[in-house]
Amino acid sequence: MNTITPMKPNPGRHTVSRHPKTLLRQRAGRIALVLTDSDGVLTDTGVYYGPDGEALKRFSIRDGMGVERLRAAGVETAILTGENSPSVRKRAEKLRMRFLYLGVKDKAGHLQTICQETGFSPEQIAFIGDDMNDFGIIRELTPVSLTGAPADAIPAIARMVTYHCRERGGYGAFREFAEWILSLRAH
Amino acid sequence: MNTITPMKPNPGRHTVSRHPKTLLRQRAGRIALVLTDSDGVLTDTGVYYGPDGEALKRFSIRDGMGVERLRAAGVETAILTGENSPSVRKRAEKLRMRFLYLGVKDKAGHLQTICQETGFSPEQIAFIGDDMNDFGIIRELTPVSLTGAPADAIPAIARMVTYHCRERGGYGAFREFAEWILSLRAH
Amino acid sequence: MNTITPMKPNPGRHTVSRHPKTLLRQRAGRIALVLTDSDGVLTDTGVYYGPDGEALKRFSIRDGMGVERLRAAGVETAILTGENSPSVRKRAEKLRMRFLYLGVKDKAGHLQTICQETGFSPEQIAFIGDDMNDFGIIRELTPVSLTGAPADAIPAIARMVTYHCRERGGYGAFREFAEWILSLRAH
Amino acid sequence: MNTITPMKPNPGRHTVSRHPKTLLRQRAGRIALVLTDSDGVLTDTGVYYGPDGEALKRFSIRDGMGVERLRAAGVETAILTGENSPSVRKRAEKLRMRFLYLGVKDKAGHLQTICQETGFSPEQIAFIGDDMNDFGIIRELTPVSLTGAPADAIPAIARMVTYHCRERGGYGAFREFAEWILSLRAH
Repeated sequence: MNTITPMKPNPGRHTVSRHPKTLLRQRAGRIALVLTDSDGVLTDTGVYYGPDGEALKRFSIRDGMGVERLRAAGVETAILTGENSPSVRKRAEKLRMRFLYLGVKDKAGHLQTICQETGFSPEQIAFIGDDMNDFGIIRELTPVSLTGAPADAIPAIARMVTYHCRERGGYGAFREFAEWILSLRAH
Repeated sequence: MNTITPMKPNPGRHTVSRHPKTLLRQRAGRIALVLTDSDGVLTDTGVYYGPDGEALKRFSIRDGMGVERLRAAGVETAILTGENSPSVRKRAEKLRMRFLYLGVKDKAGHLQTICQETGFSPEQIAFIGDDMNDFGIIRELTPVSLTGAPADAIPAIARMVTYHCRERGGYGAFREFAEWILSLRAH
Repeated sequence: MNTITPMKPNPGRHTVSRHPKTLLRQRAGRIALVLTDSDGVLTDTGVYYGPDGEALKRFSIRDGMGVERLRAAGVETAILTGENSPSVRKRAEKLRMRFLYLGVKDKAGHLQTICQETGFSPEQIAFIGDDMNDFGIIRELTPVSLTGAPADAIPAIARMVTYHCRERGGYGAFREFAEWILSLRAH
Repeated sequence: MNTITPMKPNPGRHTVSRHPKTLLRQRAGRIALVLTDSDGVLTDTGVYYGPDGEALKRFSIRDGMGVERLRAAGVETAILTGENSPSVRKRAEKLRMRFLYLGVKDKAGHLQTICQETGFSPEQIAFIGDDMNDFGIIRELTPVSLTGAPADAIPAIARMVTYHCRERGGYGAFREFAEWILSLRAH
């Protein structure tokens, strides 16, 4: 199944014009870790509250298969989020992610720690996010690596990233970003 | 109510051009079991996590009525999924499905077992799926039987099936596939 | 606030052509009870399953306000459903509905019982439904009263009703049907 | 990050024609409190019922970031709702809102109390709502302050407000209203 491209990358919306295909392929070939925001990327920004506060978050099985497909290609995945939800920890465990960064208020400031802990350089780390607290890390990684945003990301974020997904957060955006990277690596 | 066609099949998107109507009717007449993927077909790929991990999945009452209408026409239904969710087991029980295949990683490889257990041949088994782990079984069944995919299936899957639904997973795709088969059998 | 029409009825889709406005107003003036299906009308057909089976259904506050606005105009409301969900009972209690019919498999056949229990004639009972098990009661009530269907109702149902809503089930269809009846009564 | 406008205000739909930009900026400069309805603004009107009645409501992390961004600009936030949901109390606590008004059936009538408790005048209070029980308070505040409505608000409400959001309730409407006020204050 390695030669099948299951999802066509979005030709109209990602900023391929600014980045020649050969450059994108070079960058994709170096990626060792796909780092992802949780709320708004793995979820549709929704959080379900009950009488005791936060009770549930909704994830997508389709994104889970993206994690598996990256792993099969030798690429790790990790979640980096400003929130501290027990549900996110459980989802990361289920997907057997090797790294997990919860409650990180300054994501850009945490990048150095992530590089140290994972042993990867910024050139090896792709990132997908959707809102203002992803601004700093996307600004840092876009010039040297690959960055993405769901279809319904905040416009200020969508404008900055290497690849703007057709799919919304919680409905396959992470999977689409993963398949885009995998298809660049396959060529 | 047997003579009422409650949902119009989607004339523009299913691959009726490749399959003349008489062939589709012959195949539909042979169907004894409609086998369905769970995540992305009976659900919208969503899985709800709480502090203890997976807590809920959302199904559609409309698909449940599809199961009932197939049963009234003498057609069995069964779920075939790579996941192992207790919620899927409960849903299958509620819908009084006779067969249930949970945690099957290689769906195509499991087809022979399904044929043995149910007593049906591949020509008697229709299948609907949405993602890459449905690729193999769809490739096997499309030449001899009827296959389907929800509106929001992965493109690589949508391209391969006999019938591409207008409805999304979790919002009536299974029901639409069931009604399409029933309407072919009625003519 | 009685003179405000909060939602514009859908001019393009309801079958006003078959029913002159004066007839619709006469019928609306007689309505004493708005009877509604639950799944697919008050919900988006979704049912949430956990390890113990059915756990949750999602209703809309906007429909709840429709119940209140009908009550303020002297019109009762009731739920008629083939399912037997404890969540539906709780929702009906919260909305202080005077009547509730759960687990009714033959809705048309139950109409006589409903008339006896409520003291209303079929001319006084409006109904909104979305799927084949609503077919019989809609066929019976459409010639003498007012019937409705959500935007995403099964086509066979949508074709039959007096008013086809713009809003989907679970997202304000019941409210729109209620406001349509109220606006007919106000003129 | 203060100079970044993360979301473009909706030029086509808000009633900027009736309110010259200089007037809107003056009003925005005075806002000290953004008051919001809960159901239909912070949620998509959905309420999840289980066997014991109301169990969950779904909020958006994106709106939560709107509360944080307003706070960083010195603007308070508060919820004003006719319902009495424990989940709303928990959400307000999580967002560290200073004020919370639950179970208020007459919102317009409660405005004076809110002014007394908060120490703010009506000119200092912006409001966003979606349904008929928001009608009175919106009618009172629109001539002197800034009011908003989600994309899917009841038409009678959408027509009256200063700013009609592109985003739906529960999917960023509150955030968009907050960003619109912040962008007016920044110029």
